[in-house]
Amino acid sequence: MKCDSESPQGTRQKNDNTYTKKMGSEEKAIVRSKECYLSAFASDGIPTSDHLRFRTVDLPVSVTSIPDGHIAVEILSISVDPYLRTRMLGREDGLYFSQFKLDEVVLSCGVGKVIASKDDRYATGDITMSLVFPVAEYAVVPSELIMRKIDPASGIPLQEYVSSIGVPGFAAWVVVELLGLDLKQGSNVFISAAAGGVGMYAGQLFKLKGCRVIGSTGSDEKVKLVKDEFGYDDAFNYKVETDLDAALSRYFPDGIDFYLDNVGGKTLEAVLNHVNTRAHIVLCGMVSQYNQVWTERDGVRNLLNMVGKEVKMEGFMMGTYFDRFEDFVKDMEHYLREGKIKSKHRINQGIEAFVDSLGSIFSSSNIGKLIIQVNP
Amino acid sequence: MKCDSESPQGTRQKNDNTYTKKMGSEEKAIVRSKECYLSAFASDGIPTSDHLRFRTVDLPVSVTSIPDGHIAVEILSISVDPYLRTRMLGREDGLYFSQFKLDEVVLSCGVGKVIASKDDRYATGDITMSLVFPVAEYAVVPSELIMRKIDPASGIPLQEYVSSIGVPGFAAWVVVELLGLDLKQGSNVFISAAAGGVGMYAGQLFKLKGCRVIGSTGSDEKVKLVKDEFGYDDAFNYKVETDLDAALSRYFPDGIDFYLDNVGGKTLEAVLNHVNTRAHIVLCGMVSQYNQVWTERDGVRNLLNMVGKEVKMEGFMMGTYFDRFEDFVKDMEHYLREGKIKSKHRINQGIEAFVDSLGSIFSSSNIGKLIIQVNP
Repeated sequence: MKCDSESPQGTRQKNDNTYTKKMGSEEKAIVRSKECYLSAFASDGIPTSDHLRFRTVDLPVSVTSIPDGHIAVEILSISVDPYLRTRMLGREDGLYFSQFKLDEVVLSCGVGKVIASKDDRYATGDITMSLVFPVAEYAVVPSELIMRKIDPASGIPLQEYVSSIGVPGFAAWVVVELLGLDLKQGSNVFISAAAGGVGMYAGQLFKLKGCRVIGSTGSDEKVKLVKDEFGYDDAFNYKVETDLDAALSRYFPDGIDFYLDNVGGKTLEAVLNHVNTRAHIVLCGMVSQYNQVWTERDGVRNLLNMVGKEVKMEGFMMGTYFDRFEDFVKDMEHYLREGKIKSKHRINQGIEAFVDSLGSIFSSSNIGKLIIQVNP
Repeated sequence: MKCDSESPQGTRQKNDNTYTKKMGSEEKAIVRSKECYLSAFASDGIPTSDHLRFRTVDLPVSVTSIPDGHIAVEILSISVDPYLRTRMLGREDGLYFSQFKLDEVVLSCGVGKVIASKDDRYATGDITMSLVFPVAEYAVVPSELIMRKIDPASGIPLQEYVSSIGVPGFAAWVVVELLGLDLKQGSNVFISAAAGGVGMYAGQLFKLKGCRVIGSTGSDEKVKLVKDEFGYDDAFNYKVETDLDAALSRYFPDGIDFYLDNVGGKTLEAVLNHVNTRAHIVLCGMVSQYNQVWTERDGVRNLLNMVGKEVKMEGFMMGTYFDRFEDFVKDMEHYLREGKIKSKHRINQGIEAFVDSLGSIFSSSNIGKLIIQVNP
């Protein structure tokens, strides 16, 4: 079924990628699809084209050729998120995600249009989202991996379903709505990687709760973005403010009540010197630390502060909260329609943009939530 | 009122320490009392006689000489606990305890007998406990610092009120009964400093909840103690098992669900490589780390594990839970009467034993909860 560069045999129809092929006595629709697979583990650096490659496959997508309980989809958009990197290490790491297998297609949150269905719940033309769509132009997937159908009449741009209503939005919503039960009007909130996918939405959700929100991020442009677009009370560029302790003293004269940590290491340590009594730290990921094996990571030396200040620190994985996904979607759709949540997207075109896009997340070079527009 | 070595003037009565003195037209009872004061901060080591000194004072203790709302007490027992050291540093540290002032008497949990009272709630002869009695033979204290009256007819030895019903017992009870709401029958519990004051009682309380309890401690004798006396399922000597990771693999083939951390540093880091999903870590103190300023402490490098395993880590201070002190006393008195909680005490005689006793906590040289018997 898979072939690397073979020419399609059969009669082209619909678009350049689809054609029919005589298989035995039946004529079946076939699509030519480019897909991204893991060719080597990126065990100690950012995944590049040395690790992620593309191949073209001919995929039978007619209703007679796909298995029961499966749907064939044309992928429209794919989300590019930092955690993906930790599925490409070839070793179990602190996030404990299962590793992608070598030679298999990598998976990410995406939006796709059904082109054939062997599940009564989905019809041709339906728009669906999944957290684990193949990073490919077309795919045949078990329908149980579909998170929901998207109503095209909702007026919400489809790309929101891989950002504010996708992985980063859900992570942010879990932090603020489910874990942040101690948040109060005026709570002093700090967010690292404030312009990243999670930070962008978390900051806005914290503001909707009446908190005072300060972010750190990696460029002056992003500082401006989170303040002007996302309503952060203030923000600073950690590459300019190299004395984190001094920066936190200045931005948090009354201490930190809640810290959403996306970076770990020295930032987390600095925060622990500025926490108020019964501060709450939620660990969402540690982008500053993914490069190293754990023994080479920055150790946090002041955890004793957690005793005297009675700090609670907790990590979370989104999967634990999937039973609340519909509540989340309802909340976010409402906020988006009311204009209370804004997104900033960086949209790269074509499936092959996936590799460089993933790399750019770790170099601070991109601004806005990264999305691959696979098919227009 | 205070004098260093002056001889008492007046008529001796009752015992060697008490005499009366004519003050103006009245005759007042005076006691000669030895007390321990901080002469220098022990900023980077264990407090010794270089930092803690004794002086003798003549204390007016008659009901006409003590202020309203105060009581005069003869101190019977004083507790020696690791946290005391962090009040002698001369700098704010991770426990954020207020520092004892130079030249002032140090304070600790103790039991004392009322010898005069200017508070209707307390009468001469009452036995009282306080978490902040002066480390002295006699004292005049505000009665609001008294935690409770002790019923001498309860059949519980008075020393229990500075151990199982004192600071370490209360800390252990808070951990197990108030913070350990996630504990289940069969939960895999690890306790460091297992033979220390907190570990000794926490281990037994965890066992009463049906948990599987493993401890680490600093000598083979203590390993035997926690297994034979306190009912730990197993324990190991961390000075022998220098490969903590291997030890934890062996003692926790099914991973760790709950860790009561009394030591911090490398042990905490090792535990984070053996935690189960949604493990819970309660930080009670970090005896291995008190010697250093925080920048020189062992950094914990694998906090990212807290994300993937959704670990919750929290510090606590007993003071937050004082409203539950009576519930605690009721529980512990019940357990003690039923023989469900046992204590191991190391009782040193006389107030001057306080300094070496405090030092011995940090050298693993003592076994059992350290108590100073001040007056028999």
